[in-house]
Amino acid sequence: MAASHKRISRTAGNIPGELVHIGEIKIDKANISVLDYDENNFQEKEITDIKDTFPFKETPTVTWVNINGLHELKIIEEIGNYFEMHPLTLEDIVNTGQRPKYEDFDKYLFIVLKMVMFDEAKKAIVSEQVSLIVGSNFVISFQERKGDVFEPIRERIRNSKGRIRKMGSDYLAYSLLDAVVDHYFFVLEKMGDVIEDLEEELVTNPKPQILQAIHNLKRDSISLRKAIWPLREVVNSLERGESKFIKKHTVIFLRDLYDHAIQAIDTIETYRDMISGILDIYMSSVSNRMNEIMKVLTIFAAIFIPLTFMAGIYGMNFEFMPELKWKWGYFTLMGLMAIVGFGLLGHFRRKKWL
Amino acid sequence: MAASHKRISRTAGNIPGELVHIGEIKIDKANISVLDYDENNFQEKEITDIKDTFPFKETPTVTWVNINGLHELKIIEEIGNYFEMHPLTLEDIVNTGQRPKYEDFDKYLFIVLKMVMFDEAKKAIVSEQVSLIVGSNFVISFQERKGDVFEPIRERIRNSKGRIRKMGSDYLAYSLLDAVVDHYFFVLEKMGDVIEDLEEELVTNPKPQILQAIHNLKRDSISLRKAIWPLREVVNSLERGESKFIKKHTVIFLRDLYDHAIQAIDTIETYRDMISGILDIYMSSVSNRMNEIMKVLTIFAAIFIPLTFMAGIYGMNFEFMPELKWKWGYFTLMGLMAIVGFGLLGHFRRKKWL
Amino acid sequence: MAASHKRISRTAGNIPGELVHIGEIKIDKANISVLDYDENNFQEKEITDIKDTFPFKETPTVTWVNINGLHELKIIEEIGNYFEMHPLTLEDIVNTGQRPKYEDFDKYLFIVLKMVMFDEAKKAIVSEQVSLIVGSNFVISFQERKGDVFEPIRERIRNSKGRIRKMGSDYLAYSLLDAVVDHYFFVLEKMGDVIEDLEEELVTNPKPQILQAIHNLKRDSISLRKAIWPLREVVNSLERGESKFIKKHTVIFLRDLYDHAIQAIDTIETYRDMISGILDIYMSSVSNRMNEIMKVLTIFAAIFIPLTFMAGIYGMNFEFMPELKWKWGYFTLMGLMAIVGFGLLGHFRRKKWL
Amino acid sequence: MAASHKRISRTAGNIPGELVHIGEIKIDKANISVLDYDENNFQEKEITDIKDTFPFKETPTVTWVNINGLHELKIIEEIGNYFEMHPLTLEDIVNTGQRPKYEDFDKYLFIVLKMVMFDEAKKAIVSEQVSLIVGSNFVISFQERKGDVFEPIRERIRNSKGRIRKMGSDYLAYSLLDAVVDHYFFVLEKMGDVIEDLEEELVTNPKPQILQAIHNLKRDSISLRKAIWPLREVVNSLERGESKFIKKHTVIFLRDLYDHAIQAIDTIETYRDMISGILDIYMSSVSNRMNEIMKVLTIFAAIFIPLTFMAGIYGMNFEFMPELKWKWGYFTLMGLMAIVGFGLLGHFRRKKWL
Amino acid sequence: MAASHKRISRTAGNIPGELVHIGEIKIDKANISVLDYDENNFQEKEITDIKDTFPFKETPTVTWVNINGLHELKIIEEIGNYFEMHPLTLEDIVNTGQRPKYEDFDKYLFIVLKMVMFDEAKKAIVSEQVSLIVGSNFVISFQERKGDVFEPIRERIRNSKGRIRKMGSDYLAYSLLDAVVDHYFFVLEKMGDVIEDLEEELVTNPKPQILQAIHNLKRDSISLRKAIWPLREVVNSLERGESKFIKKHTVIFLRDLYDHAIQAIDTIETYRDMISGILDIYMSSVSNRMNEIMKVLTIFAAIFIPLTFMAGIYGMNFEFMPELKWKWGYFTLMGLMAIVGFGLLGHFRRKKWL
Repeated sequence: MAASHKRISRTAGNIPGELVHIGEIKIDKANISVLDYDENNFQEKEITDIKDTFPFKETPTVTWVNINGLHELKIIEEIGNYFEMHPLTLEDIVNTGQRPKYEDFDKYLFIVLKMVMFDEAKKAIVSEQVSLIVGSNFVISFQERKGDVFEPIRERIRNSKGRIRKMGSDYLAYSLLDAVVDHYFFVLEKMGDVIEDLEEELVTNPKPQILQAIHNLKRDSISLRKAIWPLREVVNSLERGESKFIKKHTVIFLRDLYDHAIQAIDTIETYRDMISGILDIYMSSVSNRMNEIMKVLTIFAAIFIPLTFMAGIYGMNFEFMPELKWKWGYFTLMGLMAIVGFGLLGHFRRKKWL
Repeated sequence: MAASHKRISRTAGNIPGELVHIGEIKIDKANISVLDYDENNFQEKEITDIKDTFPFKETPTVTWVNINGLHELKIIEEIGNYFEMHPLTLEDIVNTGQRPKYEDFDKYLFIVLKMVMFDEAKKAIVSEQVSLIVGSNFVISFQERKGDVFEPIRERIRNSKGRIRKMGSDYLAYSLLDAVVDHYFFVLEKMGDVIEDLEEELVTNPKPQILQAIHNLKRDSISLRKAIWPLREVVNSLERGESKFIKKHTVIFLRDLYDHAIQAIDTIETYRDMISGILDIYMSSVSNRMNEIMKVLTIFAAIFIPLTFMAGIYGMNFEFMPELKWKWGYFTLMGLMAIVGFGLLGHFRRKKWL
Repeated sequence: MAASHKRISRTAGNIPGELVHIGEIKIDKANISVLDYDENNFQEKEITDIKDTFPFKETPTVTWVNINGLHELKIIEEIGNYFEMHPLTLEDIVNTGQRPKYEDFDKYLFIVLKMVMFDEAKKAIVSEQVSLIVGSNFVISFQERKGDVFEPIRERIRNSKGRIRKMGSDYLAYSLLDAVVDHYFFVLEKMGDVIEDLEEELVTNPKPQILQAIHNLKRDSISLRKAIWPLREVVNSLERGESKFIKKHTVIFLRDLYDHAIQAIDTIETYRDMISGILDIYMSSVSNRMNEIMKVLTIFAAIFIPLTFMAGIYGMNFEFMPELKWKWGYFTLMGLMAIVGFGLLGHFRRKKWL
Repeated sequence: MAASHKRISRTAGNIPGELVHIGEIKIDKANISVLDYDENNFQEKEITDIKDTFPFKETPTVTWVNINGLHELKIIEEIGNYFEMHPLTLEDIVNTGQRPKYEDFDKYLFIVLKMVMFDEAKKAIVSEQVSLIVGSNFVISFQERKGDVFEPIRERIRNSKGRIRKMGSDYLAYSLLDAVVDHYFFVLEKMGDVIEDLEEELVTNPKPQILQAIHNLKRDSISLRKAIWPLREVVNSLERGESKFIKKHTVIFLRDLYDHAIQAIDTIETYRDMISGILDIYMSSVSNRMNEIMKVLTIFAAIFIPLTFMAGIYGMNFEFMPELKWKWGYFTLMGLMAIVGFGLLGHFRRKKWL
Repeated sequence: MAASHKRISRTAGNIPGELVHIGEIKIDKANISVLDYDENNFQEKEITDIKDTFPFKETPTVTWVNINGLHELKIIEEIGNYFEMHPLTLEDIVNTGQRPKYEDFDKYLFIVLKMVMFDEAKKAIVSEQVSLIVGSNFVISFQERKGDVFEPIRERIRNSKGRIRKMGSDYLAYSLLDAVVDHYFFVLEKMGDVIEDLEEELVTNPKPQILQAIHNLKRDSISLRKAIWPLREVVNSLERGESKFIKKHTVIFLRDLYDHAIQAIDTIETYRDMISGILDIYMSSVSNRMNEIMKVLTIFAAIFIPLTFMAGIYGMNFEFMPELKWKWGYFTLMGLMAIVGFGLLGHFRRKKWL
C-alpha cells in the first residue's frame, strides 16, 4: 500500500513543472515500443532511442508509443518536448502518486489512470499508474513497469481483429481504458471470492484470523475505490464529447465504458457493505462464544462450589460434631449433595443454559 | 448471490461488441415465443427458427417476441442483425452482469433490468436479467430462463382485458416494467415478514441463529437495492419523455411507475434501518445476558468461597487448635457461616443483583 | 407497523388503473359527509348515496366531501367518474400503501398524505392514509376510518371563525394539510416525553427493558420519518405555486406550512440522533456494570482462593508434617493468612477496584 | 432541553395566524425599550405603553424597539398591527419553537434566530428565541426574557463608536445577528474546554461518570447545531442581497458574518466527531479494563485451584494411602506444588499476561 | 489543538472591523521582509519601519512583502491603510481562527489559508494561519511566526530558477499556495507512516496504548481536514478565473494545484477510513483476547473444581464411610479422578477450546 497512498512531496526547492521521478523504480531500463497501423498497413518495433519515434508524429497512420519505466527522465523530456506536452503534464507522468484525471490541452488529451492487477504470487492487489497522451493520430502510453493488460489489444491490432484497425487514435485510447476497466472486474471477482469464503467460514468456524482478512479486504476495497471513483469522472468527461480528439463514433463506446465504470463502483460499494456486515456478524459471534464459555464456567462453578463447601464442613476436625457419629450421616449427606447438585442442574436447564 | 455481483470480465482478447455469453446457463435450449396483436387481431405462437419472427417487424400490429435463454448466441445475433441492434447492445444482452440501464438508440430503446423472484423451494431470492428492445411496433424481451412475472400480461393480451390491446409497444414495455416492479413489492413483503418474525424472536427468545438470519437479510437487502436503485433512474429517464418511442399517453403511467419505484426504494431503506436496529438490539441483549450469567457466577462464588475457606481452616490438623476442643465450637462456626452467607446474600440483594 | 410498510402487490393479472382495495378494512360501512359553504351560506349533511354529492360540483360555493372507508369500491368509482379522476388516481386512493405525493392533473390536484395519531389506549402511533382531490371549488377527502384531526376545521367552518369561510378550496386544502402537520408535532411531543423518560432512567437505573423501548422508539421514528419526508416535498411543490388551483393568497400560508414540515423533520432527525445516543450510552453502561460485577468476583476469588489453599495444605494427613506439631503453628498460620488477605485487599484498593 | 425541541402544537381549533403564546414564560411583565438615533441625534427610553413607540415609525432616524417577554399578546398585537406585520409573522414571534428562518415581506424583513448563552450558575447552555422585524428605518426585536448579548451594541450606539450611528437599520440588524453569532463562539469555546477536559480524563482516569458527560455534550452539540445550521441559510439569503431592505454597503459585512456562521458549523461538526471519538475510546478502554480484571482472576484461579486440589487429595482419610506414610511425602508434595505453581506463573508471563 | 478550534469571540463591545489580535503570540517582535523583482532586477531586504514598503506599491516590479507576527496591530493597520484594505480584511488577518477562504475585493484578492507543519521536536502537527493580499503587482503575506515553507520559493526568485521571475504577482501567489499544499503531502506522509506502524503493531502485538495513538491520529486527521477542505474551494474559485488579478497563463497552474488539493482530501478521507478500520479491528481483537482468557479460566475451573470436590468428600470425617476402609479405595478414586479430568479435557478439545 505504501506506494498507493503516497505522493511524495516535491523536494523543497522544486519548481512546478520540473521533472522529478516520484515513486518506486520497478524496471531497470526504460523500454519503448511502437505500433503503427491503419486499415491496410501495420508495423511493430522495439525502439532504443526515443528519437526514433519522432517521425511517426507526422504520418497519417495511427501510432501507439508505449514506454515502460518512468525514471529515465531524459526520455520523458525528449518525447515531451517533441510532442509539445506541457511541463505540468510531464511532471504528472513521472509522479506516480497521481489521482486518475483528465485534462484537455490544445495539442492532446492527457489521461491518468490506475491499472490494477492481481499478483497471483503475492496474493495481493498491485496498482500501477498509466498515463495516456492522445493526439489526433497517436497515443503515447507511459507505464511504471513491464507487464500490462493491453496484450489482447496488441493482438487485435496485429491480426486486424474487430474494428480497431479501421478506427482512429481515440478508439485506441478507448480500447486501452476499456482493457483497464475490464481488468478491475477481474480483480473484483477475486475479491468477491475471498468475501464469499469469509462468509462461509464465518458461519462454520469463526476464527480470530478472520479479523486480519477483513482488515486486508477493507484496505483493498479502499484502494480500489480510490482508483475507480475518479476514473468514472474521467470517462464521463470524455463521453460528454467536448474534446475535439474524441470522434462521434467513439462516444457510444465511451458511454458503454462509463456504464462499466459505474458497475465497478457499485460492486465495490456492495463489497464494502458486505465487509462491514461480516465484521459486525463476527463481533456478535465472538460475544456469543463468550456467553457460551461463561455459561460453562458458571454451571461448573455454581454446582460444585456449594458441594465442595458441604464436603468441607464435614472435613472439619471439631471434637464435638454429632453428625459425624451418625451411622447414616455419610449417606444422608451424599443424598443431600445429589439433591442440591441435580437441583441446580435442573435450574440451569430451565434457564435454557444447557 | 454468486451470480448477482459478478460480471465476469471479457476473456482477454475479446473485442468490444463481440458476443460472449457471460453467466450461468439456466435453460437447456433457448425458447422463443411471439405474441402479435392490435385492437382486433391476436395471434400467439411458439417458434423454433428465429427467422420466423422477422416478418413481424414490418407489420403494423404490436409484436412481442420473448426469448428465454441467452447462451445460443446465434439466435441473439440473427435477431440482433435483423432488428438493427448495435453490437454493444447485443453484448450487454448476453452478459448477465449488467446494471439496470436505459439507452436510447436511433432504431430502438434498450432497457436492462433485474427481475427478482422469491424461490419458495429454496426460500431464497433469485434474480434474473431481463433485456427489452422497444421499437415503434415491437418489443423484444430476453430472459435467462423459463418462468417470469409476465404471465398476467399475456393473459390480458389474450383476453383483451384493460387497455393494453388498444395501445402501442410503449405501453407493452411499460406493462412489463410495471410487472417487474410490482413483483419487487411481493418480494419485499416476504422480506418484511422475515423481519417481523426476527423482531418478535428478538424479544421472546434471542438465539445465536438470529445472527445468520440478519446476515442473510442484509445480503438480500443489498442485492435488492442494487437492482432497484438504478431502475429508478431508468424509469425517470423514460418518464421525462425524451424518447420518440414513448408516446405522451404512456408518460402518465410511467410517472405512476416511478412513484412505485421510489416507494420500493423507501421500503428497502426502511428495512435496512430496521435490520441494523435489530443487530444493535441483539448485540445489546447478548451483553445483557452475559451480565446475568456473570451475576449468577459471582453470587455463587462470592458466597461459597469464603465459607469453604472457613470450613477449610477447621479441617486443618494442627495439634494445638483450641477451638476444636470447644463444646460449642462447631455450632458457633455454623452460626457464623450462616451470618456471613446471609449477609453476603443480603448485600447482593441490596445491589439489585437478585 | 404491519400496515405501514406494506404495499401489497396487485394480485397477478391486475390491470394498472383497476380498482382493488389494498389494506386493512378499518370501518364497517363507508360513511360520507358534505360541508358546503361560502362567506354567507353554510350547510352540512351526512349522505348515504354518493350521487347526492354530484350536484355540489357545479355550485360556486366551496364543497368539502369527506369519505371514511375505502373498501366500498363502487362509491370510489362513482365519485371518481363523476369528478373526472384518472384511473391511476383512484387506484392510488384505495391502495393504502402510498407514499405521500402530489400530482397535478388537468381537472384537479391529487395529494396523498399520512395522518398520524397517537392511540392513547394502545400507547402506540397509528397512521392512516388521507387522499385529497382539490378542484377549483371542491375538496374531496378520503380516509380509512372514522376519527380524524379535522374536527377543529369543521368547527371553524360552522362558526365562521377566522378567514376560512372567505377563502376558496385551496385554503381548505391548506387547512387540512396544516391540521395533519400540526398533529405530527403533537405526536412528536409524546415521543419526546418518552425519550426524556428514557434518558432519566438511563442515568438512575438502567434496566434491560430499556432495549425494547429504544427499539420501539426507533421504529416509530422510522415510520414518522417515512411519512413526513415526502410530505415536505409535497408542500414544497404546492408552495412553488405552479398549479392553477393554488391561489396566490394561499401561497404564503403554504410557505409557513413548509417551515413547519421542515421543523418536524428537524425534530425527528434530532430524536434519531438522541435515540442512537441513548443506545450507545446504554451499551457502555452495560459494559461498565459488567466491569463492576467482574471486580467483585475477582476480589473474592483472588483473596479467598489462596487462603483456602493454605488451609488445604494443613488439612493434609501426612504423618510427618513438622508444622502441625508446633505449639504456635496454628496461630502463626492464621497470622500469615491475615497478612496475605489484607495484603491483597490493599493491593486491590490501590488499584482503585474498591 | 424540554423547551428546545418542543413546538407545542396549536391547541385544537386554533386558526392559522391566531396569536397563542407557546413556550415558558420567563419574565413577569413584558418590558419595552427604544433607542432612536442618527449620526447626530440619540435618545434612549424605557416605555410602558407600546403606543409610545408608534411615532418613531415615521421619523427618518433609525429606531430600535426591543421587547422582552412574549406572553403579553396585546402588546405584540398592537405593535404588529401598527407596523403592518402579517398575522403569520406575529404567530411565529410568540411561538418560541421556531426554527431560525428568514422571510421577506413587502413592508419588512422577518428574521427568527436562537440566541444561545452559557448559564454559569446552572453550568448549562440556555437558548432563547429572538425575532427581528427589519423595516427601512426601524428594527423591532422580540426576546423571551431580560438579559441578552446586545449590550455592547447599545454601548456603541450611545457612544457613537464605530460606524453604527452613520448607518441604517440594515446595519443595526446585521450588528444584532453578528452579536448572536459571536456569542456562539463563546459558548463553543466553553464546550471545547469541556471536551479537552474529558479527553485528558479519558487518558489519566476513565470513570463511568464520563458517560453522562459525553451524553450531555452530545445533547448540547445537537441543540447548538439545530440553532446554527438554519442560521447559515438565513445569513446566506440576506447576503445574496435580494431584499430591498439590505443596502449594498451592508452586504460585505453579511458576507463576513456568513463566514463566521460556516466556521461555527465547522467547529460543531468537529466537536461531534471528537465526542463520538471519545465515546469509542472510552468503550474500548472499558473493554481493556475488563481484560485486565479477567486476567487477574484467571491467574489466581488457574494457579491456586490445581494446588488446592493437590492439597485436597492428601487431606483424604483413606486408610491405605502409601504416600502419607513416606517420610519425605510432605516435602516432596510441597516441592511439586512449587513447581506447578511457578510453572503456571511462568506460562502466564510468557503469554504476556503479567 | 487548543489553537486550532478556537476563534475567540470578539470581546464584548468590539466593533466589526476593529483590530484585535486573537490567538497566541508566537513571535516577540513582528519582522518584515521585502523581495522585489522582475525578469532582470532583484532586491531583497529586511525592513524595520513598515513605511519603507510603501514605495514598492507604485513600482512596476513584483513586490512580495512578508510579515511575521500579527500582534503589532499598528503595523497591520498602517500597511492596511496604505494598500487600501477593507477593515474586515484586516480584522480577519489578525484573528488566527479563520477558516481558509477567498474574497475578491476591488483592489486586491484576499486569501486565508492554514500552513501545516510537522514539528519534529514535539512529534506533533502544528498549524499556522497565513493570509495573502494579492494585488496587480504585489503580494503581501502575513504569518504568525518565523519559519515557513516558502524558503524554496525565495531561493528560486533569488537565483531566477524556473519561470517565476518572468511572471507576475498571481504566479507568486500560486507558488505560495502550491508550497503550502505540497507541504500537506509531507505531513500526510508522516501520518501515513504512523498508520502503517499501527497496523503492523495491531497484528503482532495489540496493546492498550494503541487507543491513545488512534485517538491522536483521529484528532490530527480532523484538524487537517478542516484545513484542506475549504482550501479546495479557495483554489477552485481562483481557478475559475473570474478575478482580474489572475492572468490566463496562471490558470493552468491553479488547475494543477486544484488536483493536488483534491488528492490531499482523498488521502485524508482514506486515512480516516483506515483509522476507523484500525479501531474496529482493535476492539474485535480485544474481545478475542477476552475469549482466550475466559477459556483458560473456564478450562482450569471446570476440570479442577469437580476433582477438588471429589477429594473433599473423602476428606470428610464421618465415622462410617465404607470406602475409606477399602484397600484399593484410594487408587480407585485416583483412577476415577483421572478419568473425569481427562474426559473433561477431551471434551474441551473437541469443542476446539484447546
